[in-house]
Amino acid sequence: MKAATAMATLIEQHFSADNPLRQVVLVACGGSLVDMYPAHYFLNRESAQLHSYMMTANEFVYAPPKTLGKQTLTIVCSHGGNTPESVAAARLAREHGSVTITLTHNPEAGLLNWSNHNVLYEWGGESQVTNNPMAQILSYCVEAVEQTEGFAGYADFQHGLAQIDGIIARACQQTLPRSADFAARFQHESLFYVLSSGASYGHAYGFAICSLMEMQWLNAASIHSGEFFHGPFEVTDETTPWLVMVNEGQTRPLDERVVAFLQRYAKKIEIIDARELGLQQIAANVVDYFNPVLFYSVMCTYRSALAGIRHHPLETRRYMGKTHY
Amino acid sequence: MKAATAMATLIEQHFSADNPLRQVVLVACGGSLVDMYPAHYFLNRESAQLHSYMMTANEFVYAPPKTLGKQTLTIVCSHGGNTPESVAAARLAREHGSVTITLTHNPEAGLLNWSNHNVLYEWGGESQVTNNPMAQILSYCVEAVEQTEGFAGYADFQHGLAQIDGIIARACQQTLPRSADFAARFQHESLFYVLSSGASYGHAYGFAICSLMEMQWLNAASIHSGEFFHGPFEVTDETTPWLVMVNEGQTRPLDERVVAFLQRYAKKIEIIDARELGLQQIAANVVDYFNPVLFYSVMCTYRSALAGIRHHPLETRRYMGKTHY
Repeated sequence: MKAATAMATLIEQHFSADNPLRQVVLVACGGSLVDMYPAHYFLNRESAQLHSYMMTANEFVYAPPKTLGKQTLTIVCSHGGNTPESVAAARLAREHGSVTITLTHNPEAGLLNWSNHNVLYEWGGESQVTNNPMAQILSYCVEAVEQTEGFAGYADFQHGLAQIDGIIARACQQTLPRSADFAARFQHESLFYVLSSGASYGHAYGFAICSLMEMQWLNAASIHSGEFFHGPFEVTDETTPWLVMVNEGQTRPLDERVVAFLQRYAKKIEIIDARELGLQQIAANVVDYFNPVLFYSVMCTYRSALAGIRHHPLETRRYMGKTHY
Repeated sequence: MKAATAMATLIEQHFSADNPLRQVVLVACGGSLVDMYPAHYFLNRESAQLHSYMMTANEFVYAPPKTLGKQTLTIVCSHGGNTPESVAAARLAREHGSVTITLTHNPEAGLLNWSNHNVLYEWGGESQVTNNPMAQILSYCVEAVEQTEGFAGYADFQHGLAQIDGIIARACQQTLPRSADFAARFQHESLFYVLSSGASYGHAYGFAICSLMEMQWLNAASIHSGEFFHGPFEVTDETTPWLVMVNEGQTRPLDERVVAFLQRYAKKIEIIDARELGLQQIAANVVDYFNPVLFYSVMCTYRSALAGIRHHPLETRRYMGKTHY
C-alpha cells in the first residue's frame, strides 16, 4: 500500500486538471532497465492516457523524448544509486520539470539528489516483492493508472501481490533439482539463447546480459518468442542450447509455439513454465504481469547452479569496477 | 511527396477534431519489424501528441494495446504480404476501427484485404528510398507529425530524402573493398555481436537476426551501445567479433564510447561510421533518422561479401518455407 500513498501524494502535489500526468519515462541501465520492462508492458497494455517510454539512461540523456516536462513522471532505478548515466538522467528529468521517482538500495546514493520520492529497497531480499525493484516499479505504474484513469484489474493486482511471495517460494523449491540438472547438462556450453514474450521478454534479455554475459562471461542472446520464426530459428540445430520461459497469460501461445518447434529440431532445451510453477493461481486479467517477477527469482536458482558447477562466482568481474571506460 | 498526399487524404477521411489521430502502432515480423524502428524512434523523439507502439505481429494479435481503436493509425509491413501473423494484425486493427497503412512488394498480398492505403514497393530496388520500406514508413510517420502538430525539421527531412540516395551510392562504393576485407578476416567466425544506438539500434538487431542468423546460419546478438557497459561488455576478449555502427547525430557519443573500449580490449572489430560515409551532409536536426537507412544498404555489401566467401547464398533456408511451424 506504500506505493498507493506515495503516488497519491505525488499526484496531488505535482499534477492537476491543468497539468495532468501524461507520460511515464522508465530510465535505467542493464539489470535495472530489465526491472522496468514489466511496467512498460503493463502501461502499453492497460493505459489509455499514459504514454510510456523505456530507455537506457545514456540514450535518454543524449536524446530525450520531446514530451519530457511537467506532465512527465520519470522513474529511475540504480541498484548502487551512483551509476553516472542514471544520476545524469534523473538530473535531466528534474531540470525539464519532470517529477522523479528513484529506486536504489543505497541510502547515500547520488541519485537521491534528483528525487521527488525514493524507494529504498533491501538488496539480497529481492525474492520478496516489497524488496524487488521490478515488482515495485510495476506497483507504482499500476497506481499511476489507477489514480488517473482507473484500472479494472486493480483489486486483482493487489491480491496477486499478496500471493506472489508464496508462489515464488514454492516455485524456487520446485526448481532446485531442475536447476542442478540444468547446470550439470549445460556446464560446458559457451552460448545460450533465451526466449520469452509478453511482460517477460525483458527478463529474457536480462538473463542473457546480466546472468550469463556479465556474471558468467558466457555468450548469450535474447529472442522474442514472436520473432523467433522470422529469422532467428534458422540457426536451430542439435548443438545450441535454448532456454524458454513460458508465460501464463495472453502470450502463452507464442511461447508454446517455440517449444513445439524446438522439441522437433533442437536437443538442448530447458523450459521454465510459469503455469507448472503455480502462477495460474493469480487472476487471469492480471497474471501476465506477474510472470517476470516469478521468472526473476526462479532463474536466480539456475544461475547459481551454473555458477557453482563452473566455479565462476556470480560477482566476478574483469572490467566493471576494475578499469576506466 | 506521395506520402504527404496519402497521409493528408487518410487524415481528412478518418480523423477530425472530435476524433483526432492519437496513436501510431507499428506492427510486423522480423526484417519488416526492423524497418519500423526508425519511425518509432522518430515519433518518440519528435512528437508531443502521437503515442507510438512497436510490436512483433503475433504479440499485437494476442495482446494489443488498450488504446487500439478509431484514433489509431496502424502500419503493417510484410515483404511477401502473406505472413499470417501480419495479415491477422492488420485484420485485428481494422476490426478495432483503426485506419491501416500496409506495405508490401506483392500486389496480390492477403494484407491488402485489410488496408486503407497500401504502399507497393519494388523488391531488389530498396537501396533507393522510394522503394525502401524503412524510409517509406519513416516518411509516413514524419507526415503524420507534420500534419497533426507540425514538425520543425520537416523541410530538412525532405531535403535529406533527396540527398540520401546519392550518399548511399557513394558509401556502398566506399565500403566494397572494406566489406571484402571484412569477409576474408571473419569468414570462419561463428558468433558476432552487433552494436549501435539511437535510430540505428533496430538495424543492429536486424543485421543480427536477418543477415547473420537467418541468411548465414551464424550466431549473433545485438546490443545497444548504451547498454554495453552494464553487463554485456564482460564477455569482451580477443577472440569474439564485434561490429559497431557508429551514428552521426545525438547518440554518437554512446557508439564512440563502445569503440574506444573495444579498441583497448578486443581484437576483432569492424567499425562502420556514418560520418566517415558522408552522412554529415544531412542537416543536424534530422540526420539521426537517416543513419539506419544508410546502414541498411551499406551492411548489404557486408552480408553479400560474407555469403560469397562462405559459399552460403543469402537465400538458403532450412526451416522457413520448408517445414510447418
